[in-house]
Amino acid sequence: MQSFNPPVRTLMGPGPSDVHPRVLQAMARPTIGHLDPAFIGMMDETKTALQYAFKTENELTMPVSAPGSAGMETCFANLVEPGDKVLVCINGVFGNRMKENVTRLGGEAIIVEDKWGEAVSIDKVEATLKENSDIKIVAFVHAETSTGAMSDAEKLCAIAHQHDCITIVDTVTSLAGSELRVDEWGIDAIYSGTQKCLSAPPGISPISFSERAIHKLSNRKTPVTSWFLDLNLVMAYWGKGAKRAYHHTAPVNTLYGLHESLVMLTEEGLENTWGRHTQNHLDLKAGLTEMGIGFVVNEADRLPQLNTVWIPEGVDDATVRSQLLNEYNLEIGAGLGDLAGKVWRIGLMGFSARKENVTLCLAALKDVLK
Amino acid sequence: MQSFNPPVRTLMGPGPSDVHPRVLQAMARPTIGHLDPAFIGMMDETKTALQYAFKTENELTMPVSAPGSAGMETCFANLVEPGDKVLVCINGVFGNRMKENVTRLGGEAIIVEDKWGEAVSIDKVEATLKENSDIKIVAFVHAETSTGAMSDAEKLCAIAHQHDCITIVDTVTSLAGSELRVDEWGIDAIYSGTQKCLSAPPGISPISFSERAIHKLSNRKTPVTSWFLDLNLVMAYWGKGAKRAYHHTAPVNTLYGLHESLVMLTEEGLENTWGRHTQNHLDLKAGLTEMGIGFVVNEADRLPQLNTVWIPEGVDDATVRSQLLNEYNLEIGAGLGDLAGKVWRIGLMGFSARKENVTLCLAALKDVLK
Repeated sequence: MQSFNPPVRTLMGPGPSDVHPRVLQAMARPTIGHLDPAFIGMMDETKTALQYAFKTENELTMPVSAPGSAGMETCFANLVEPGDKVLVCINGVFGNRMKENVTRLGGEAIIVEDKWGEAVSIDKVEATLKENSDIKIVAFVHAETSTGAMSDAEKLCAIAHQHDCITIVDTVTSLAGSELRVDEWGIDAIYSGTQKCLSAPPGISPISFSERAIHKLSNRKTPVTSWFLDLNLVMAYWGKGAKRAYHHTAPVNTLYGLHESLVMLTEEGLENTWGRHTQNHLDLKAGLTEMGIGFVVNEADRLPQLNTVWIPEGVDDATVRSQLLNEYNLEIGAGLGDLAGKVWRIGLMGFSARKENVTLCLAALKDVLK
Repeated sequence: MQSFNPPVRTLMGPGPSDVHPRVLQAMARPTIGHLDPAFIGMMDETKTALQYAFKTENELTMPVSAPGSAGMETCFANLVEPGDKVLVCINGVFGNRMKENVTRLGGEAIIVEDKWGEAVSIDKVEATLKENSDIKIVAFVHAETSTGAMSDAEKLCAIAHQHDCITIVDTVTSLAGSELRVDEWGIDAIYSGTQKCLSAPPGISPISFSERAIHKLSNRKTPVTSWFLDLNLVMAYWGKGAKRAYHHTAPVNTLYGLHESLVMLTEEGLENTWGRHTQNHLDLKAGLTEMGIGFVVNEADRLPQLNTVWIPEGVDDATVRSQLLNEYNLEIGAGLGDLAGKVWRIGLMGFSARKENVTLCLAALKDVLK
């Protein structure tokens, strides 16, 4: 058994994205204790920077010590009680995963389904809420990583609130990549990942809970099934004040990485980061269009940071992706589910959203498709 | 907001332990995709090395993508069904946490309690199993991190099997620090952490399941409540073969760190690593005894890697620990629960189990207690 020296890739799949050397170097700083006063200070800065990234003043804003899937589960496990009716919007893989969460927790999932590659239909959600006055939660994916479609989180939250529902929103792929305003839009429980547009290494899931969400959590009749994800306990460690109670051992070095990526976000400015994603998307689109490669999602609902495109007819998916990986060290993403073999997912997330990446990707694709 | 540069500490608390520069450097290697063929190869090596560390041939041996608490929850969430009777041995904080897991999952916890600082009583476990023929699982902590007591895992497993029970064993602090033989002792489900005697950064939890445990998992009548921790799904990613299905995004760089720490374990040899922990413990004990500082746990049940000692009379706990941290950059651990303020927990785990650490700790304590 020998040390592992990974190949140096350009990561333009659906995540992880390229990690900046500053962030990688931060990961290698000396490990200190998770109750060290110096570490507590870094935790506070991380929480404040996450509030900035989410555009929220929610006190309960913090990184869960596990990947995005655990962030999703944190939201559902804390907010869904057995018997709760939850409207789940499904327009891709991650809506399906939300439904799995609801039913495993003993909730009842009321499904609003839309075609993969389309945004969630506001009208259908509204109609379903009118028909089912006992729905308590509306859950949807803001940016579907499996299709590249963006849904209108602001409108969906407004409708949910009109029907006295709280909202759970998946922003794994949207946070720091495109417009997202937790407080202004009225998102109640939100989760994301570090390995997409924040360009920190994978393994952490930023979350934020509004007062409304905390109210539902505080009034549960049953304990949260998961001890590890129970926010009543987690907040004793991540909460306010200098005194923190031990809950679990935080992933110290991964949090160094997240912290450094948030420093870089504040340096660039959130709106500038959104703009950079848009600009690189437009450049990529221009090049792909020239090559006759079309997008799965219509222009209005298209995510700049995740470009899902049709594989040209007669071209073999796996052959092209292998060639890009082996000859150009370039990773692009495969399709999932029904879209497998039919589409590629080209990510422009975080540090991957750079002119040189767009240029390399277009040139390499041109070579390989010749 | 500025980059975080942690102080350089010597970590002699209950974990995290000192991380070797080789492991820190591994964390900073370029991130690659979690489905990259190069990454899959590293995953296989990691699984094999964990089998070596656990002394098991269990096929289901892998690192859970979250800290030790999530490893604990993985074992309980997959194996305990509502109504299951589980014998839980409590002789410290982590036995209590096991009980929490059982009851939150709808199981019934039958408690065998022993004093903090003592090993689990074999006789009491046997008597309880005789009285309750419908107990299905026996759960106990091999090395109680809150007290420094080691229990006899081999005997406890033998008795459990005599009563047709499977065993869940917490080895967060024992793995790679003292003798542990999963197959020989008949441990059915085991979890550990990376930040103790493996000296990798925190955030990962190695687990292993025997055929007997997999049989119980495969015959569940209800789905596992947690989607994230459901081993039926996780194994599609961590299982055999070149083809891995996406489940969640693995913590790529933290796994680089774990891999490197396992390379170092194989270089030293597992038995040598156990021996190094014992030798450093004996040196520390000799020095502490000379200073009139006594151990909480009797000699036979004492963990070499976690030394829980009585704070000398008239000495203020917090003052001494602050002084050690601020003047010597030396972290030692506080007591938990009833032992808070009364004991210190001095860790000699992994890379922290070194002559220079023992020497520094003894000399600094001498200075401060003067």
